[in-house]
Amino acid sequence: MTGSARMSRRRLLGAAGAGAAAVGVGAAAGVLADRTLGPDPVANAAESAAPVPFHGERQAGIVTLAQDRMHFVALDVRTSSREELVGLLKDWTLAAERMTRGLEAVDEGAVGGPRAAAPKDTGEALDLSASALTVTIGFGPSLFDDRFGLAAARPAGLTRLPRFPGDDLDPARSDGDVCVQACANDPQVAVHAIRNLVRIGFGKVAVRWSQLGFGRTSSTTRAQATPRNLFGFKDGTRNLKAEETAALDEHVWVQPGDGPDWLAGGTYLVARRIRMHIEIWDRTPLFEQEDIVGRDKGEGAPLGQVKEFDEPDLHVRGEGGVPLIPPTAHLRLASAESLGGVRILRRGYNFTDGTDGLGHLDAGLFFVCFSRDPHTQFVPMQQALSTQDKMMEYLEHTGSGLYAVPPGVREGGFWGDTLFT
Amino acid sequence: MTGSARMSRRRLLGAAGAGAAAVGVGAAAGVLADRTLGPDPVANAAESAAPVPFHGERQAGIVTLAQDRMHFVALDVRTSSREELVGLLKDWTLAAERMTRGLEAVDEGAVGGPRAAAPKDTGEALDLSASALTVTIGFGPSLFDDRFGLAAARPAGLTRLPRFPGDDLDPARSDGDVCVQACANDPQVAVHAIRNLVRIGFGKVAVRWSQLGFGRTSSTTRAQATPRNLFGFKDGTRNLKAEETAALDEHVWVQPGDGPDWLAGGTYLVARRIRMHIEIWDRTPLFEQEDIVGRDKGEGAPLGQVKEFDEPDLHVRGEGGVPLIPPTAHLRLASAESLGGVRILRRGYNFTDGTDGLGHLDAGLFFVCFSRDPHTQFVPMQQALSTQDKMMEYLEHTGSGLYAVPPGVREGGFWGDTLFT
Repeated sequence: MTGSARMSRRRLLGAAGAGAAAVGVGAAAGVLADRTLGPDPVANAAESAAPVPFHGERQAGIVTLAQDRMHFVALDVRTSSREELVGLLKDWTLAAERMTRGLEAVDEGAVGGPRAAAPKDTGEALDLSASALTVTIGFGPSLFDDRFGLAAARPAGLTRLPRFPGDDLDPARSDGDVCVQACANDPQVAVHAIRNLVRIGFGKVAVRWSQLGFGRTSSTTRAQATPRNLFGFKDGTRNLKAEETAALDEHVWVQPGDGPDWLAGGTYLVARRIRMHIEIWDRTPLFEQEDIVGRDKGEGAPLGQVKEFDEPDLHVRGEGGVPLIPPTAHLRLASAESLGGVRILRRGYNFTDGTDGLGHLDAGLFFVCFSRDPHTQFVPMQQALSTQDKMMEYLEHTGSGLYAVPPGVREGGFWGDTLFT
Repeated sequence: MTGSARMSRRRLLGAAGAGAAAVGVGAAAGVLADRTLGPDPVANAAESAAPVPFHGERQAGIVTLAQDRMHFVALDVRTSSREELVGLLKDWTLAAERMTRGLEAVDEGAVGGPRAAAPKDTGEALDLSASALTVTIGFGPSLFDDRFGLAAARPAGLTRLPRFPGDDLDPARSDGDVCVQACANDPQVAVHAIRNLVRIGFGKVAVRWSQLGFGRTSSTTRAQATPRNLFGFKDGTRNLKAEETAALDEHVWVQPGDGPDWLAGGTYLVARRIRMHIEIWDRTPLFEQEDIVGRDKGEGAPLGQVKEFDEPDLHVRGEGGVPLIPPTAHLRLASAESLGGVRILRRGYNFTDGTDGLGHLDAGLFFVCFSRDPHTQFVPMQQALSTQDKMMEYLEHTGSGLYAVPPGVREGGFWGDTLFT
């Protein structure tokens, strides 16, 4: 796992002590008041700037230690030539691999080419580090229509998600032939990556929608502390972790025999733009917030337990025999216990996109998850949540996409080579 | 200057060497390939997380070392009671000061109050550091109408900006009675600050518009390297710097006698949301880009010079007597030399707000500048740029605001106390 050895530069609560002590600046900062510096500002700054290997059995950006920022784009393919599309995927692969090493997208780059030509890199990341950039590609159901001869290769799981109760999906924030997820610890590095891929695809693809995420809402390894979403709660405590390799094989990675060979070793990406009505949430009493989530807000412990990582007990009852974790609690409904063992790998980000024109912030969670079969994992989970989760009163799903994520690229290969060759 | 001793955790090019060497992690990282780690990933991580003092002669967030991220909001005041407005400004001041120390917005906070009540802090910054948060307030011209008895206190400079050629302003991204600029090195800390101030103002103010900026486009001290904008060029090389105290008095801080006493020691904030047509720019030849900017793209040196901080020579001519810095170059038109000595303090951010619905990223520069008199500084500058700057072909001003920024708050005072008492 490329990311498992890395830690974020922020939020390292428990894990941070030793790292901080080893660095002089951390000790000096100790004279400042409690909490002003947060958990560990200096730990692993070098690691958060370092490159993440691009090549490998799996694409990076899935179990890779979750970076702090994200730029996600969905694209419509405009060319109808399979050859052009394959050429683009090859060009993209080279560029993505270079950028993850901290290089410019293309040789000669922003300033090294002839002055009479447009520069081959847009230049805004010239002075920036690799920032743990990962670039991950997925293919939407619409790519498998009759344009490129891919209809027979469409995996059975790659069909549009059903409409869920309460969905308020904007077509302009949904679907797309191809998606690219860029994650990095510096947002400018993630934006640069997406922009340069879009640029390389000029005339062949067009941006359908894109989403910037400013703060991660999931941990993907045990070394990483659990971040908070915009409801102020720790999010993703029970997330699948990079260390759980057997569980990843069971719940995330498409296995040989699951469907067409080309997707074996890959996965599916579900994206949901979830507007959170934070103003209404913020007027909800603390006990009600905690009942809705199923955890206490400070520590993040399951109700009835003490520590964040204590196992939830869905059966424990309090006064009058009332379940401590209510039947409508998010934790209960999304739990493997309630869903016949279903688990997913979450990798979402908080967003704030200005305002809604009605006096409120347009803020929420850009939910991204990876699963081996979305229709038996994400779909029943979201069905349960959309019909029973009390949190739904505060949520509005405004965008949606499903994409098949091909396996990793070997040296000399290209994104999707198992599909196209 | 609270910020002058601080440096960013990224982009420290020249200044970084010594700092990195002093920290063990930096040395260890040296084994990695050139450029992969960027300038100096570990320098001053502690400082970028540390608090910036809130109280002082000036508001923080102006000459304070530019943080990496920003959340800006413009608000409409909904109450017509002057007393309620003053009460809100007092509550805001307490909350802003607490948050800049890394504390929750209000005592008892997210989890310390009665469980039957809504929490007093929204909680998403609970585990985060102070992140050099600054919160800066400004008052728009519309606040000085007849609602609050402020008409006579309106400074002469606080009138809406004139319409400039090429303006395509969206009223839903312009103006507002009050603005609040939150800058921090962690975007979640900046968003948390704005959200909690909005929440405290519930029923008294409503969000008119807001803007997230992901990457700073200005340096405010000599210790800080010049960042790049989304045209890929270094931006703000000739910016006013915190060290130039006499120039700040001349160009930024409102002086006694300039207008009403309450604004002495304050300044004016101009905000312009500038959409950049990056796709068109990216197809422009390098020499043309450099002629438009007036600098070379790699080093950022003025055309005809060698190093970024070399003084531009606006008169030097090349072959055939053609000026090396063209008459239509941004550098020339925005220079103090061309504007009768006018200078401003820039403090803007790059943004990417999804897409424009036409296949392009909706990206650009959220321009923020501070000046002593916008009508004799920003206005003539923008007049020159909007009529002669070749860069205007690639720009679209889509939002605009002008605000009077009161002086700093002394211990026990509140935002705007010189205006309201």
